[in-house]
Amino acid sequence: MTRRRSLPLSKVYGLLEPGPVVLITTAHKGRSNIMTQSWHTMMEFEPPLIGCVISARNYSFDLLQGSRECVFNIPTVELAKQMVGIGNTSGKKLDKFAKFGLTPAAASCVQAPLIEECYANLECKVTDRKLVASYNFFILEVLQAWIKPGIKNPQTLHHRGQGAFMVAGPTIKLTSKMK
Amino acid sequence: MTRRRSLPLSKVYGLLEPGPVVLITTAHKGRSNIMTQSWHTMMEFEPPLIGCVISARNYSFDLLQGSRECVFNIPTVELAKQMVGIGNTSGKKLDKFAKFGLTPAAASCVQAPLIEECYANLECKVTDRKLVASYNFFILEVLQAWIKPGIKNPQTLHHRGQGAFMVAGPTIKLTSKMK
Repeated sequence: MTRRRSLPLSKVYGLLEPGPVVLITTAHKGRSNIMTQSWHTMMEFEPPLIGCVISARNYSFDLLQGSRECVFNIPTVELAKQMVGIGNTSGKKLDKFAKFGLTPAAASCVQAPLIEECYANLECKVTDRKLVASYNFFILEVLQAWIKPGIKNPQTLHHRGQGAFMVAGPTIKLTSKMK
Repeated sequence: MTRRRSLPLSKVYGLLEPGPVVLITTAHKGRSNIMTQSWHTMMEFEPPLIGCVISARNYSFDLLQGSRECVFNIPTVELAKQMVGIGNTSGKKLDKFAKFGLTPAAASCVQAPLIEECYANLECKVTDRKLVASYNFFILEVLQAWIKPGIKNPQTLHHRGQGAFMVAGPTIKLTSKMK
């Protein structure tokens, strides 16, 4: 495994703004789970805030409500099969790490595990639940970010719906004053 | 110009889930504006709800607060220069349609104009402002969606930060039970 490096929190937005599918890990009272998710947005640069929808129909909703913590793990195209398998199954009666051959690694700030095979991992705590009842919408603060060094153009996955996923293409550089 | 077609609202999520940069148009009391934006997420399938951050520092914030309407226009790579120019300027003293050679077209449900050159347009009204004061976060309902037909793999732009934009690559198809 490539050793992961701590990423400055000021750079987290650059990982999520492009809109990748993420694998969200949760853990509570000895159970852990993974879910496939695309409904997330940055809400603040630093400390980085993320808004995301976790449906109450998902087992991960219960673990998140119980623990108030999770990890956003960002997979690349090599994990496409696992990513879709995780989305097609429920963790209620299944250990998804075992089923999909993924390696849990200890996080530093939260109980939820990192997924070793993902190129980036964001350890998060829930900071605002005002919109959970009405929209299943959680606001998370990123406490610690990790990245595998040397991946310049990560081939992240982007969900177009119904099994179609766009794979990240080339990166272009423009003269921008935007952060 | 290619004629645009009405897109069923049930398909809107497939346009935004991949995380493209959008050009948000607003109009209020005879003024209109365009802003470049990437902080958005789907929040519901149908009627489609979008959550998005529009900073109070942006002129578009005032127009959106005044009119409670906007249009999400999705550009492709051909509009990269205009997209970044729009992000680098303020509409307070500038007509961005004129400055960047874009064509406003009348929307059907809102006052804000469609950008003719974009491959998709989502006419939206603000439905929830509970998180505007604390996070500049608006919840929008999509009232009408438009798409230019025949574009199978739109080369949308995805912001990696500081002038770096990922251009959408190929689409892969996997066996998914996920919507």
